[in-house]
Amino acid sequence: MRILFTGDHDEDVRRGVREAAPRASVAFGADPAEGIEEADAVVGHVPDALLARARRLRWVHSPAAGVDGVLSGALLDSDVTLTSSAGNGAIPLAEHAMLLMLMLSRDVPRWQRAQAERRWDRHTHGELAGATVGLYGLGNAGLDLAAKAKAFHMRVLGMRRRTGVPAPGVDELFGQDAFHRFLTACDFVVVTAPLTPATSGRFDRAAFAAMKRTACFVCVSRGGIADDDALLDAVRRGEIAGAGLDAHGVEPLPPRSPFWTLPNVIVTPHNGATTRETARRGVRIMLDNVGRFARGEPLRNVVDKAAGY
Amino acid sequence: MRILFTGDHDEDVRRGVREAAPRASVAFGADPAEGIEEADAVVGHVPDALLARARRLRWVHSPAAGVDGVLSGALLDSDVTLTSSAGNGAIPLAEHAMLLMLMLSRDVPRWQRAQAERRWDRHTHGELAGATVGLYGLGNAGLDLAAKAKAFHMRVLGMRRRTGVPAPGVDELFGQDAFHRFLTACDFVVVTAPLTPATSGRFDRAAFAAMKRTACFVCVSRGGIADDDALLDAVRRGEIAGAGLDAHGVEPLPPRSPFWTLPNVIVTPHNGATTRETARRGVRIMLDNVGRFARGEPLRNVVDKAAGY
Repeated sequence: MRILFTGDHDEDVRRGVREAAPRASVAFGADPAEGIEEADAVVGHVPDALLARARRLRWVHSPAAGVDGVLSGALLDSDVTLTSSAGNGAIPLAEHAMLLMLMLSRDVPRWQRAQAERRWDRHTHGELAGATVGLYGLGNAGLDLAAKAKAFHMRVLGMRRRTGVPAPGVDELFGQDAFHRFLTACDFVVVTAPLTPATSGRFDRAAFAAMKRTACFVCVSRGGIADDDALLDAVRRGEIAGAGLDAHGVEPLPPRSPFWTLPNVIVTPHNGATTRETARRGVRIMLDNVGRFARGEPLRNVVDKAAGY
Repeated sequence: MRILFTGDHDEDVRRGVREAAPRASVAFGADPAEGIEEADAVVGHVPDALLARARRLRWVHSPAAGVDGVLSGALLDSDVTLTSSAGNGAIPLAEHAMLLMLMLSRDVPRWQRAQAERRWDRHTHGELAGATVGLYGLGNAGLDLAAKAKAFHMRVLGMRRRTGVPAPGVDELFGQDAFHRFLTACDFVVVTAPLTPATSGRFDRAAFAAMKRTACFVCVSRGGIADDDALLDAVRRGEIAGAGLDAHGVEPLPPRSPFWTLPNVIVTPHNGATTRETARRGVRIMLDNVGRFARGEPLRNVVDKAAGY
């Protein structure tokens, strides 16, 4: 059994791999263009052009939680199993979403400007308590965020593809056909969903028009779920009150992007889950799957390739 | 029965007062210097010099949650019952404390500077999950904060005067004699306690020296509990990693204060609980007590004048 790691890993991780798959032949920092023919598994990205040559390949593991960047047409059409690191950054993403909601609710940029100018600038602001937050996506991040929002005394609405699955902390679940009714009820809408054919561009002009004029839009998962032109117009025209954006349609966000300078938009650089703990959790998920693959056991975090996550 | 309101109130509040105490004679926007002799109760502040003339006075209600500003020597020595609005701002204060911890953990000022300069500035930051927060004070705000911190997967330590009272959400309660042991265990220390003779200056040089060098200090209740000179030195010398300060020893914080410009200090202008909901909750507490007073029932939020809250 041959496993290629396209990324490099420190000695702790290498030792973990050898312990998880003691009889496998492993290569770290491998170029998949060399040796893809012999590989049973790849941890990392396999370019489309190489997949046709990957005759033995049965498994690809993505070090990222979202697989929109690796789920190419060739991989989609193949029999190769794709697994993800879903869950590695769920907790810090939920922390980031709470931070962005608090910053919007309290106008933190105003306090930061006042601090820079040594000005005592008190203002009346909002509370999250009593507000309604709608979670678009109820995976690991969404469910952790639901529990946090309940501790903040918020009403929590949820929308996801799979119904009939328990959603602790969610006061009301909406079906996909009730998208605009869901949006209309929210003071905050938080996108935690993956970028898939079904979610791409889902927040269009009609979606932002359905939101309250006092509501804020927060995205911590992937750009492209919101149509950035529609979002920009909605914020500029006051159709919504503000936005907190960690994920952007184009990344890095270009210096000329108007999002940087809008007073009611908080921009962070796709950085919500960039923690040492996210990396550690990702390594644990990967090592668990390497062990399962080596022992012929069912893998975890198997991606539904048609659904895109 | 005569009740003076030293502040002014809108018609909704006036109507509420008349409904709560239909047989009382009430005056709004009253100057206590005129008519204090006839007053059975004052909602607002009674200057020390007037208390000797207040022969009928049995009750003073503070529109603020903290009574450090009104608990004068004369009031302390009198038989007058003092009640407070404790609890009116507990939830937004806990929100503010979570905001300040998140801002310190993720270095939000760095993101805000980058946004102002249209720079994509990613950095590895911390998570609150797994960190230990110590709550100095476990009143309404402290207990609400404990529940929020648990939803953030934090370990929660608590310290308060009264032991033997339930503290839901607190993993470990420390006695006052274990102050430095409590501080040593914390990644974040959050002050939610009232300013009293026992808490004044409690965070001195020795206290900050006991904290981890990687820990942050947050104060959302009252200045003066921390010795600002000691705090300033601790932050400047790196004895602690940073501070988030909504309450300050001198307010407004003077323009010349070094706290404004320290890179690892976040200053907000005693503004954590300045919400419409705080005002509404304060009115509800006041009206409840006016009704109780009119009916001769026990008042709520009675201040232990010797303890100072």
